Amino acid sequence: MYKIVLLRHGESQWNLDNRFTGWTDVNLTAEGEAQGRSAGQVLKKEGFKFDVAYTSVLTRAIRTLNLCLEEMSLNYIPVIKHWRLNERHYGALQGLNKSETAEKHGEEQVKIWRRSYDIPPPPLEESDPRHPANEPQYADLPKDDKPATECLKDTVDRFLPYWEVEIKPQVAAGKSVIIAAHGNSLRALYKHLAKVSDDDIIGVNIPTGMPLVFELDEDFQTTKFYYLGDPEAVKAAMDAVANQGKAK
Amino acid sequence: MYKIVLLRHGESQWNLDNRFTGWTDVNLTAEGEAQGRSAGQVLKKEGFKFDVAYTSVLTRAIRTLNLCLEEMSLNYIPVIKHWRLNERHYGALQGLNKSETAEKHGEEQVKIWRRSYDIPPPPLEESDPRHPANEPQYADLPKDDKPATECLKDTVDRFLPYWEVEIKPQVAAGKSVIIAAHGNSLRALYKHLAKVSDDDIIGVNIPTGMPLVFELDEDFQTTKFYYLGDPEAVKAAMDAVANQGKAK
Repeated sequence: MYKIVLLRHGESQWNLDNRFTGWTDVNLTAEGEAQGRSAGQVLKKEGFKFDVAYTSVLTRAIRTLNLCLEEMSLNYIPVIKHWRLNERHYGALQGLNKSETAEKHGEEQVKIWRRSYDIPPPPLEESDPRHPANEPQYADLPKDDKPATECLKDTVDRFLPYWEVEIKPQVAAGKSVIIAAHGNSLRALYKHLAKVSDDDIIGVNIPTGMPLVFELDEDFQTTKFYYLGDPEAVKAAMDAVANQGKAK
Repeated sequence: MYKIVLLRHGESQWNLDNRFTGWTDVNLTAEGEAQGRSAGQVLKKEGFKFDVAYTSVLTRAIRTLNLCLEEMSLNYIPVIKHWRLNERHYGALQGLNKSETAEKHGEEQVKIWRRSYDIPPPPLEESDPRHPANEPQYADLPKDDKPATECLKDTVDRFLPYWEVEIKPQVAAGKSVIIAAHGNSLRALYKHLAKVSDDDIIGVNIPTGMPLVFELDEDFQTTKFYYLGDPEAVKAAMDAVANQGKAK
């Protein structure tokens, strides 16, 4: 009945540096740009067309989407950017190297911060320049909407209302939609659409630059979901994400 | 009181080939991409910040804007794409070389088609694949809004309502606005804001990739307007546009 496509942004500089990124606005690497283009080529080959695109207000997702749409000759479609599609805010961990953090706090603690459903990392001080209160792109947001840190549950709680109120009605109206976002904001939607439990979502790793298709019936129940592209490449990309939190 | 910035897209493949482009969706050249980035660097250096951006549904304007915003670290602002900002539709001339057309029809006829206010080039047949009726990005438009050709007056008539209804209220509300568009859709706004007569607008050449600033008082009357960047480069770029229609 309906098909929607989820796309995690291509490799960013801090993916490459293995640092916690969150709301830090880092750019794509050359490899990340190639992943965005490659996603567009796969989608075009498979006959996908989109009427509207949603993305976060973070450069790496916006540029992945733009490169993908360029390959599909779909530059002209509306691109709607919203902070509710942002990556999970990683609090005071933003900027730290994942392996170093694992060595310091232990792999298990890092796994809890990265993958537990309701335990947030240590918060940023409001005076910290990394706090959204001090960033111009969030100037118009109510104070309560500017996180100092987030657990995955927080990300789900601020993403799902946007899905319900903005995106789902577009899909229901027959629009073909692509959502280009981040590991955790997409995991929030994945959890909702695939009915994954709070415990099991910890083990779900969404690879960068691989289009993920959800097919839904008329009641928005998922009938199937799958990645597009070479299955071995998808498996390798998922493993790479899972291994990022290990000490080296 | 208010400042708005107009930006004509960077060099496209058909600017380089000296062909009539109109609504044909050609991409930027590498030089055109550099012009988009350069415009962003100049605007950043001069302290400009934007809250919202408007552009056409044509790739060369959208990409110029995206490259400009990337240099300004403003990827996150809303980018609104609308067909009313498109280049003038060049009818059956679309795709033809400007010098060859001048040799065939005479420089004077080409100058009339390029620069007269109310004489449109020969129209496209509705069955022509180049006609907007056959292009997916215009599928939702009323039939009357799909031009087979346009004179500059037609472009003014379809652009100015969008300025009045969509853009001007944003400016009046205190938003800082950039408009990335095309030689003729920007000439339409230039004519309106600078109160240029139907006869004189023929001599106005807006160079590619040079930010054009209009300063307006509280009644939206222009107090001054000027290009940003090196004055000699601006002059050279304006002359280059003026000479495109000459036979070689």
